[in-house]
Parts: sequence; C-alpha cells; structure tokens
Amino acid sequence: MTLFPPDDALQLHRSLIDTAHALADAARAETLAHFRQSGLGAENKAETGFDPVTEGDRAAEAAMRAILAERRPGDGIFGEEYGRTEGTSGLTWVLDPIDGTRGFLSGTPTWGVLIAVCDATGPIYGIIDQPFIGERFEGGLGQAGYQGPLGPRPLKARRGVGLSEALLFSTYPEVGTQAEGELFRRVSARVRLTRYGTDCYAYGLLALGHVDLVIEAGLQRYDVAGPIAVVQAAGGIVTDWNGGPADMGGRLIAAGSPELHAEALAILSGIGSAGDAA
Amino acid sequence: MTLFPPDDALQLHRSLIDTAHALADAARAETLAHFRQSGLGAENKAETGFDPVTEGDRAAEAAMRAILAERRPGDGIFGEEYGRTEGTSGLTWVLDPIDGTRGFLSGTPTWGVLIAVCDATGPIYGIIDQPFIGERFEGGLGQAGYQGPLGPRPLKARRGVGLSEALLFSTYPEVGTQAEGELFRRVSARVRLTRYGTDCYAYGLLALGHVDLVIEAGLQRYDVAGPIAVVQAAGGIVTDWNGGPADMGGRLIAAGSPELHAEALAILSGIGSAGDAA
Repeated sequence: MTLFPPDDALQLHRSLIDTAHALADAARAETLAHFRQSGLGAENKAETGFDPVTEGDRAAEAAMRAILAERRPGDGIFGEEYGRTEGTSGLTWVLDPIDGTRGFLSGTPTWGVLIAVCDATGPIYGIIDQPFIGERFEGGLGQAGYQGPLGPRPLKARRGVGLSEALLFSTYPEVGTQAEGELFRRVSARVRLTRYGTDCYAYGLLALGHVDLVIEAGLQRYDVAGPIAVVQAAGGIVTDWNGGPADMGGRLIAAGSPELHAEALAILSGIGSAGDAA
Repeated sequence: MTLFPPDDALQLHRSLIDTAHALADAARAETLAHFRQSGLGAENKAETGFDPVTEGDRAAEAAMRAILAERRPGDGIFGEEYGRTEGTSGLTWVLDPIDGTRGFLSGTPTWGVLIAVCDATGPIYGIIDQPFIGERFEGGLGQAGYQGPLGPRPLKARRGVGLSEALLFSTYPEVGTQAEGELFRRVSARVRLTRYGTDCYAYGLLALGHVDLVIEAGLQRYDVAGPIAVVQAAGGIVTDWNGGPADMGGRLIAAGSPELHAEALAILSGIGSAGDAA
C-alpha cells in the first residue's frame, strides 16, 4: 500500500473494509435464502435448470458484483462463478460465494462466503463468513476480529503447540492426488487428532486458536485468498507445501506458529520441487 | 406405554417431554460455558486436573441429573459420565452430555447434547441439541420437531433417493475395525457423496431430509438412543448392520427410507452373523 500517502491510505483501508462487510452482508442474505432447501431440489431444478446450491452461489456473487460496481468501480474482480473482470486500481476482489458447496448441499453449517482484496503482493484483507451460524472472521489492514453467537472473540492463532499435540484439519481424507494424500497421512500420523469435512471453517478455527494445522491440496485462488488474510492477521503462517506463496491455490499448509509450520513442512516438502501444484 | 390408560399416558408424555427440554436447556448452558475455551486449556487443566471438555461434560450431566432427581425421581439414568442409576418406573434416561468431544475440543459446531427416554422396547423420545448454533431436534411420543436460527422446520426424512444419489455421513473415515471399514467403503463407493466429521449432527440432518444415510460402528448406547428416537420420528429407519435393533450401540445404519436402508444393508450385512458388534 506504499502507493498511497498515509491519510489517503487510511481512507482507502476504511473503504475496502466497509465494502468487504457490505459484500458479506449481501452474500449472507442470498446464500441463506437457498440453504437447506434440498427438499425442494427436484422441483426447483425442473423449473430453473439449477439446483439450490448453484442458485445460491450465483445469486450471492451477482449481489457482491453489483455492490463493487457501485462502490469500487475501478477494482478488478475474480469470482468463482463469473470469472475475471479487469480493473484499473491495482486491487482485485477475489470472491467465493459458497466455499464448501458439498457441505452446503448436505445442510452442514461449515461452508462459508470467502471475500478477499488483493494487491500485487497477494491478499491484504479477507473475510470468512458463516451465514447460518452468524459467524464472521476478518483480518488484514490492521484488523483481526471475530463475531459469533456468543459475541466477539479475539482472533489469535495458538502458539507453543508441537506436532504431536497438534489438531489437524482437512476437508477430504483423500487430500488431493495419491502422492499428496500419502504426504498428508505422514503428517496426520504424527498429530494428536485429525478431523475432516470443514471446508473454509477450519481456517477460522485456526485463527481463533482452537486448531493448529490445516493442510489441503487441489485448491483454487478463490478458495485460499480470504482464509490466508484471516490466518495471517491472527498471527498464523500460510504457505504452499514448499514454503512458498500459497495465494494462487494448489497445495496449502496453514499453521498457528512458525515452529509448528516448520515441523509439518519438513514432512510435506518431500513431494518434490516447487511449482508443480495441482 | 400400554401400562397407562390414555389420560395418564398423555400426562406422562407431557411430563417426559417437558423434562427432556429442561435437561437440554440446562446442558446447553453448562456446555456453552466450556466451549471454545481451549486457549485456556493448559492453565485450566493445571488448576483442576481436567480439560474444558471433560469439565463441560461433567457439569452438563450433573445439571441434568439434578433436574431428574427432582422431577422424575423414579426413573433410571444411564449417563456417559456418571454411569447407571437404577430406577423403579421402568423408564431410563440415557444421557450423553457432549457427543463429539473431539469436535468440541477443536471448536467445530457439530457436537451435541443427546437425551433419550427409554422403556423396555428402546428409545421412545429423544433430543439432539446443538447449543452453539441454537438448534434442537426432537422426536417421539407423537412429536417430531426442529428449531434453529432460521426458525422451526418440519422433521421429515427424505424418501425416493436411491443409493447412487444418496448423501452418506460418518464421523471417522476409518469407521470402526478394518473389516467394518471395508464394508463401509463398499457402500461409500456406490453413493453420490460421502462426508465426515459431524458426530450426532448427521442424524439431525437426516431427520431434516438433507442427508440420506448415516453409517457408523463402535458406538455406545448413549451415542445412539437420542438419534434413534429423532430419526424414527422423522420417518427414517435405524438398525444395526444386520437389520436388528441398534439401540444398545455397536454398528448402526440410519436411512431416510426403507428402500434405501435395504440397498445399503445388503452390502453391510456381508460382515457375518448378528451379535458380534463392537
């Protein structure tokens, strides 16, 4: 953000943060209107050609794009549903209206709306929003915060936990390709507890200090941009499986502390050279 | 319930249902007081000798037992934390104050409080309560209901879904012993989607009509009594892997329809004779 003098920078930061919350509010309404409507799925699909998940996905991204067109017309957009819109400001909004569509489809409450704003260095601010429970994790541009049903909580990753005491999360037990899955299972065999099925929610739990490691593969840019900003703002470390930047997706490891990150990375980086992520 | 003439039976049913909700309310308060306190875990354990999960588990069961002692002193109790208390009424309350302690420990919101009242035939009424989200599933004694953040919803299992279109849930990908896990994976290979990590919450989603199959092994009586009552009240089918009663735990299959239950059971029952459940 060195392009802007301090006062302008503060004003820009305020605009970005306010806009991100406006996007999350809009996506919350659109996704909830379609959540747990699977009982209506068949008829719905016959009428519109889409299932409720696809409808919620598209409605939420369209609502977010309408807000950006009005409030931040110079910014670019990269969305999971409607692709890329070029901008002029050097900033790009990376949007995943429903991260965890399979969880959404089956009624579980750990899918989320992912929102990030990125400059040339990567994500600078992000939100993970869980509309059904009413939880919002935000981080970046000097902010690190959480709001949920029990009120606000500090967003601070847990430190001082070694690999043998760590709680590890991943969405699918397979974790990417056969080779990737084998490396994951080497880490999993060393930790205290491994849990599955949480999609983006796991990054929120890491940022709250309840989970120590999230390891995934086969990710897209829109899957990771929001979570990276949130986890980093909470003091966590996010890289690819070779210790390089993870903000374009592929293989990702998020850890609560640099020490734990190094322990797990030593196992994962056995996969080979950088740049061959799925 | 043929021991009671109709008017007395209605009065008894009202007493049981009111008591069950009072237990769920008390357990909700006690468990939430300990949920997501893992940041304090180490100090807490040093002071009391227990981690927050164990403390929440014990406090919630103690609170429920105190209510039963006052309101239903003749009923027996079988609780996960404090074991068996004999009764004289022929009714037994089966309590699991925190089903999904590993999920609770890691901050995920799909653990639950399980409450059931059983007579000689098995569970006749049950509650699955998720305190953090504020969701309650209840079923039995003529009731089948759900309350959650978006209001009440009908509790009705989905029918007309064949195995190839079914959504299958289980808590752990391993699913019991090696042999049990292999049979599970034969079913999993035939369904549309398999998800993990939900503990008792999966039975609630089945009763709401979003999930079609839940298959687990290595269960205890207190893990299954509440879910069985809820799923059956929603029109679902619950048995062991040989089609017999599942209310003492072991291996369990819950399905939204008799047809789907039969399809999956034909695969699972390959394990051998009845009565050898873990």
